[in-house]
Formats: sequence, structure tokens, C-alpha cells
Amino acid sequence: MQFGEILKGKEVEGKEKHVPAIELIRGHGSTGADFVRVVVGKEVPHPNTVEHHIEWVELFGITKDGKTIDFGRMNFEPVHSEPIASFHINNIDNFKAFCALEYCNIHGVWQNCIEV
Amino acid sequence: MQFGEILKGKEVEGKEKHVPAIELIRGHGSTGADFVRVVVGKEVPHPNTVEHHIEWVELFGITKDGKTIDFGRMNFEPVHSEPIASFHINNIDNFKAFCALEYCNIHGVWQNCIEV
Amino acid sequence: MQFGEILKGKEVEGKEKHVPAIELIRGHGSTGADFVRVVVGKEVPHPNTVEHHIEWVELFGITKDGKTIDFGRMNFEPVHSEPIASFHINNIDNFKAFCALEYCNIHGVWQNCIEV
Amino acid sequence: MQFGEILKGKEVEGKEKHVPAIELIRGHGSTGADFVRVVVGKEVPHPNTVEHHIEWVELFGITKDGKTIDFGRMNFEPVHSEPIASFHINNIDNFKAFCALEYCNIHGVWQNCIEV
Repeated sequence: MQFGEILKGKEVEGKEKHVPAIELIRGHGSTGADFVRVVVGKEVPHPNTVEHHIEWVELFGITKDGKTIDFGRMNFEPVHSEPIASFHINNIDNFKAFCALEYCNIHGVWQNCIEV
Repeated sequence: MQFGEILKGKEVEGKEKHVPAIELIRGHGSTGADFVRVVVGKEVPHPNTVEHHIEWVELFGITKDGKTIDFGRMNFEPVHSEPIASFHINNIDNFKAFCALEYCNIHGVWQNCIEV
Repeated sequence: MQFGEILKGKEVEGKEKHVPAIELIRGHGSTGADFVRVVVGKEVPHPNTVEHHIEWVELFGITKDGKTIDFGRMNFEPVHSEPIASFHINNIDNFKAFCALEYCNIHGVWQNCIEV
Repeated sequence: MQFGEILKGKEVEGKEKHVPAIELIRGHGSTGADFVRVVVGKEVPHPNTVEHHIEWVELFGITKDGKTIDFGRMNFEPVHSEPIASFHINNIDNFKAFCALEYCNIHGVWQNCIEV
């Protein structure tokens, strides 16, 4: 068995939207820096209750020479904070792809990747 | 001994700026939601090297009836990501204060609080 | 306002036990290494339900020359995992004190420190 | 592209040992509870320097009815703490498999799973 087998993605998406949306935003942030924003439930908000919520979002980058960098994880608090995380990244042009994971306490670990 | 005694704040700030800046931003984000942004090194950037960097930022809120909520922590990756974290918060008017902590691998744990 | 003011400790402990117990264990672990174990609810177990639980435990050390080191945080999953965390520490004799924090989703942030 | 593609496992292990060892320990811990211990570098210790180290370990369980549970993550501090994490798990017989991930700041994300 491999961890990759338990990850879910677009192909199994149901009516509650879990796949993390990944947006690359270049220099338009209030800080003037490039960042990558990860949002769960962008079009259809995911429930955010004590019983059913998104616990965390994590962003990884794959460099042009094939190295994987974990940019970090953001944890959320059910009810009180929403599953949106912006990662301010240096030398963003060194990366050829970004992958995000998120964990829903009821529906498990979901993934998405974009190639840039 | 109390944990509070090892926290550092504005009163001991030196030439490298560690105290986390806390900004409350109401409904102007690209998502239209209220959020609180925490930035380390807002005016004078903190070093971001493998040897010396900010590891994480965490945000807490104190409700008007005195309860403490941990909105979550964001971890950073030295060199690759910058210590900026935006927390998208529900019912922000229920809070009377926000406190942020951050950890520098060389200079320890720093705090800041704002009352709103 | 200071973050230290919202921390709770032994002086306010009620019937649910929140103060993290800190035990220094020298070389008796199965790995033969020194470690520090932090347990919440050691004598009286804390509730572990979706509605009321301990989210995380974190351990800090203060070196003999006064530097604060964050050894790391362990996150728990309500219902499924218990709030016990063992930190395997190198050069444990360099430290003069250890402080632990823990967060209960209902009762806030609690602290404890031991001097060694 | 899928996140599973960037995970490394036993098949690519080199001279530095990254694959997380997963041990299920039933009721022999000092607390009398069942736990799962995850160790990186069990036989050949992994470097633990500021420049090259294991940042975190995370444990997931797959229940007999196919649900994925994230038991939590433990973060480590380079030089000061070693990549060993014990997860105290309730109702361990409900699980048919455990998967661990770990992140090395130089060599990326590694996985291992055991079926029980």
C-alpha cells in the first residue's frame, strides 16, 4: 500500500467541494510580493462546524530541477477560521509545479496540483 | 517560572525586528471577508536564511466574554517562504483583542497583542 | 495587554485537569535516549470528544545561557488520539528549564514549567 | 500531475535512510495504552543539522471501513530534537493500516505504510 492511494482528487469530488484550489498571484498582493493562495470550497463553501470542517492546508512546490519544497502548513480552527491560506514565496520562477493537500475530518485527505 | 516570562515584546526589540505586526482588515480582501494579517519584519525585513529565520506565526483571539480562541498556526520554510500569515475569521466583531506569537530559531518567542 | 495574561496555570485549575505534566526521562526509553514527556490529564483524563478536546501540546526549553528553544508541537485528533507527546532531546543537560503549552478548544491555553 | 508522484519510498532509498519506520506497540507503554511509534533513521541515523534535517512526521490510519484519519503531526527542531513520534491511539483495532509521511528539508517527502 502507498500513501498516494488514499489521496482523493477531482475525479471523486462529490457535492461538498474538497479539492483545494491553487492560485498563483504575481505581485498584486498588498505586500507587492508573489504568493500562492490555496482555498478549499472556493465555489461551494465547505461546512465549517465542530463536527465537519477542514483542519489544515499545506502547499508544496516542485523546483525546475525536481526538488520538493514544503512551503508550510496552515491549521484552522473550526467555526472560527476559514480554510484559506496564502503562502508568500521567494523565487517563484524556480518552481515548475505546486501541489496542495487538505484534510477534512470526515472525508480524508485531498490533493490538487498545478503546473506553471 | 511562567511561560509568560520567556516571551519577548516591543520593550526589548533590537535592530532585527521580531515583534509580529497585527492588522485587522475588514472586507477588503480579494475574498470579501474580514481577515487578520500577521507580518514579522514588516518595516525591517527579518533575515530568512537556513541559519536564522522565523519558523511560525500563530494568532489567538480573545472574545468579548473572555474566551481564548487559537485561530491556527502557519509554518514557514526558511529561504523559500516569508513570515506573513492571513487568518480569515468569522464573526470578527465577537473579539475584543488579538494576540500573535512568532518563533525565531535564534531569538526565541515574541508576542504582540492589539485591542479592538 | 500581553499574551502571558491569557495563559492559565495551576492557580486556576478546576475539576477538568488541563495543566500539562512535564516529565524528564533519562535514558530509559526504548530508544535509550533522554526524552521529555508532556501529558495532559495525567491523573484525571481530560474529555476527548469532537466538542471538547486538547488540540495540541508544545514543548520549549530554556538553555543555561538563557536562550529559548521550541522543540516542536504535536497536534492531536479528537476522539482518535490522546494528548501525550514525547520529545527526544539532544544535550538535555544544556537546559535549565522546560515549559509546555497546551490548547483546549473550550478552555484556552494552559502552561506549566519545570526547573531542572 | 498527482501529489502521490512526488512521494518517495523504499524503492528509492539511498544511503541516508529516510523511510519512516512504523511500529505498533500494544499496551506496553509506560501509560499502558496502545501506541504507534514512527521513527526516521531507525537503523542509520539521519543527519540532524541546521542544513539537513527531518522537519516533521505525520501519521494517518485507515479504518476497516475505509475512512482516513490524520492522527496528527509532530514538528521537530533541528539539532535539538530527534525525529521520533509516538501517537497514542484509541480503538486501535478499528484500523487496518497506518501510513506515515516525513519531510526532509533536502530530500523531500517520504512515505511508508503498514497493514495490520
